[in-house]
Amino acid sequence: MQTYLDCIPCFARQALEAMRRLGRDAETTERLVRVVLAELSRLEFNQPPPVAGKRIHRLIRELLDDEDPYRELKERFNRYALELYPSLARQAGESADPFETSLRLAIAGNSIDFAAFGDISETTIGAVLERAMRRPLVGSVSRLRREVEAAREILYLADNAGEIVFDRLLIERLPRDRVTVVVRGHPVINDATMEDAKAAGLTELVEVIDNGSDAPGTLLDDCSASFRRRFERADLVVAKGMGNYETLNEMGGRRIFFLLIAKCPLVAEHIGCAEGEFVVSTLDGAGRDVEG
Amino acid sequence: MQTYLDCIPCFARQALEAMRRLGRDAETTERLVRVVLAELSRLEFNQPPPVAGKRIHRLIRELLDDEDPYRELKERFNRYALELYPSLARQAGESADPFETSLRLAIAGNSIDFAAFGDISETTIGAVLERAMRRPLVGSVSRLRREVEAAREILYLADNAGEIVFDRLLIERLPRDRVTVVVRGHPVINDATMEDAKAAGLTELVEVIDNGSDAPGTLLDDCSASFRRRFERADLVVAKGMGNYETLNEMGGRRIFFLLIAKCPLVAEHIGCAEGEFVVSTLDGAGRDVEG
Repeated sequence: MQTYLDCIPCFARQALEAMRRLGRDAETTERLVRVVLAELSRLEFNQPPPVAGKRIHRLIRELLDDEDPYRELKERFNRYALELYPSLARQAGESADPFETSLRLAIAGNSIDFAAFGDISETTIGAVLERAMRRPLVGSVSRLRREVEAAREILYLADNAGEIVFDRLLIERLPRDRVTVVVRGHPVINDATMEDAKAAGLTELVEVIDNGSDAPGTLLDDCSASFRRRFERADLVVAKGMGNYETLNEMGGRRIFFLLIAKCPLVAEHIGCAEGEFVVSTLDGAGRDVEG
Repeated sequence: MQTYLDCIPCFARQALEAMRRLGRDAETTERLVRVVLAELSRLEFNQPPPVAGKRIHRLIRELLDDEDPYRELKERFNRYALELYPSLARQAGESADPFETSLRLAIAGNSIDFAAFGDISETTIGAVLERAMRRPLVGSVSRLRREVEAAREILYLADNAGEIVFDRLLIERLPRDRVTVVVRGHPVINDATMEDAKAAGLTELVEVIDNGSDAPGTLLDDCSASFRRRFERADLVVAKGMGNYETLNEMGGRRIFFLLIAKCPLVAEHIGCAEGEFVVSTLDGAGRDVEG
């Protein structure tokens, strides 16, 4: 998905909110906003939005001289999700359809996104979880279920810290010996890295690898050769979040399921759903679940 | 009022919406957005927001090679307001308090602001007019009334085209031989110029001068010497809209009444009212009308 002109004011707002979220003073924030604006003025629009996200957050890390400014926030939301985990696992296990319940909870976890929202809190996430079972799901759960059964090698591209604990609920419903979880290769925003996969207990459950990149998405050219080989080999890719959608939605001929909350009007329009909807989108379009 | 960091994403959005409103193609819009971002990256924040507005709209006029790209829109909204004028004048004349009714209608006219809102239409303005009589008014109408009675020389700083027809309702309730209406010296956004004052029939009613500037506000240093003399001499200034508020709110020792709809969260906070409220603000603070 390309970058739209409408992304520009949003990037500027995101940079501003990031600095506030990180508790930086007005002077540092002003310096950051100036370099971000200069960077945006040279942006190539034929690239997906995570290209800009990657550059902006490199600028933030450089300016703050901090390789992982979101570390504390990531730990906070991992802890919060881990506190919820036992009761959510019970909820899924006792439900009529544990696979769909886990899937819905994993998608609900996609609300922990500091790129789209500056003001996430435990309360806002609680509200999303509350509604997770009642929401219409755009896309086909049964089709994903069938693909999971048929796949020999599944790549699960994680998105954010905190969210990755919710992903664990779904990953536990997948054939573990055939699943590899992928995290970012370097901290960027609150995206999950190996540290978060460990905190979520995933490294003890399945194979976890990183993609070698610091983009908040999966820019294949920016990823390590070893990740790219795994990506080529996998016959099913489950990609969480908008960043992975924006970077992989044009991959023809592959089986990719995008699990996300459509948090931005442009992504929602691109998918063909309403803003805020829970999505299980495939490369050949989302469509409501008509297969039951 | 200074420019806030939060103004930056808003300026970027405004530039984008302006180009769309003016029906320009994506390529031209992209070029404009790039130069606006570069300009914003060098912006001085200790200046009021109309300094940036002035620069951005100069860039738009240069890029489009059009001295008055909003001319057609301004004419459309002048026409619309003139169609409404007879019934609104009757409504004011027949009301219990014609001065307050005219004041409320003049403030309602401040909704015709293409800087704050990209998508104004006759329908949105109609909805604001509909509610104009029922809304609480932040500030003191009776105080304004007293100042009008006492003043020897009143300057009425107009804001936008279309809106200026609504202003006429209030101007007709002022002592005409003591009122001078001021318009911008050069087209900027949809701000009213001499052409619009003529279209509104104001030039036949009272003295109308221009301020010599193309800022969407009243930046005194940017105005003509003759306007500045009039501004110094006036013992009452009625200033319409956010741009005039943002540029004049720090003028100590003068009698200025700002009439506006608080369309932006920062301006609303600065005034001490809620977003969307109708305001009759003075330099010593708004305050609800306790004087009845």
